[in-house]
Amino acid sequence: MKSEVTNESRQRPEMDSVERMLSVVGDRWTFLLLREAFFGVTRFEDFRVNTGASPAVLTDRLKRSVQHGLLERQRYGTHRKRFGYRLTEKGTDLYPIIVLMMKWGDRWLNDGASPIVLTHTCGATTEAMVLRCDGCGEVIEARDVEWSNGEVEEP
Amino acid sequence: MKSEVTNESRQRPEMDSVERMLSVVGDRWTFLLLREAFFGVTRFEDFRVNTGASPAVLTDRLKRSVQHGLLERQRYGTHRKRFGYRLTEKGTDLYPIIVLMMKWGDRWLNDGASPIVLTHTCGATTEAMVLRCDGCGEVIEARDVEWSNGEVEEP
Repeated sequence: MKSEVTNESRQRPEMDSVERMLSVVGDRWTFLLLREAFFGVTRFEDFRVNTGASPAVLTDRLKRSVQHGLLERQRYGTHRKRFGYRLTEKGTDLYPIIVLMMKWGDRWLNDGASPIVLTHTCGATTEAMVLRCDGCGEVIEARDVEWSNGEVEEP
Repeated sequence: MKSEVTNESRQRPEMDSVERMLSVVGDRWTFLLLREAFFGVTRFEDFRVNTGASPAVLTDRLKRSVQHGLLERQRYGTHRKRFGYRLTEKGTDLYPIIVLMMKWGDRWLNDGASPIVLTHTCGATTEAMVLRCDGCGEVIEARDVEWSNGEVEEP
């Protein structure tokens, strides 16, 4: 059978930034626990109830998230052995992705009403949170973006 | 053992938009094949080579993506039985999320160089693609956003 692999696919780097990102975050439970962290959740039991993850899965994903530097463990209160999980700068930087996931879910999978409304300090709500180009101010759309690859040598 | 579930967690809706979104897209292979679709890939064999997915996994994820309305199957060329997969409007609307995943990977997981550069029609590149508030023009940051829930009744 003749190969249908095109030149375009051959020239793609083997692992790009999306793939690297997904190797760290790309799992439903990790996204859900990050969402909880952005809502202010810090305690194991609250993560468990809000995500519906089993204790074993949650323990694993929290551990991985700490190892990857998305969350950090912090002691809280006066009790020894009581730990919470807080977002690091690296984890916090995922916030725009979570916002856009929420917007997409609102737009395409809801029955009209938005179950959670995000409100910016200026008073604007979720709908106003838009990926724009700082060069020209336009909304980013796939058809207006080209990609190039400066690293892979031409054969 | 005393429950540590807070009021805050109790008042959260059981399934929000992020969770709905992840129930459709939230799997590493689906994100990767969507990434490929945004790079212009349409053929099974190209998806397979570029994502590294096994034929069985890829077949499953393509089928699910068509069922969920992210991709649509289209006949191409003069051959019968030759199909390609193209993004629907619903699938295309995931583009800003893929762009932000790429940016996050570039920032936090790369060793300096960006393997793929996105260029907007205006000439600006990946770095200029920023989630801003249309109300005030500021970059969206977690600390500037509050959430509220208009649907769940107080107990």
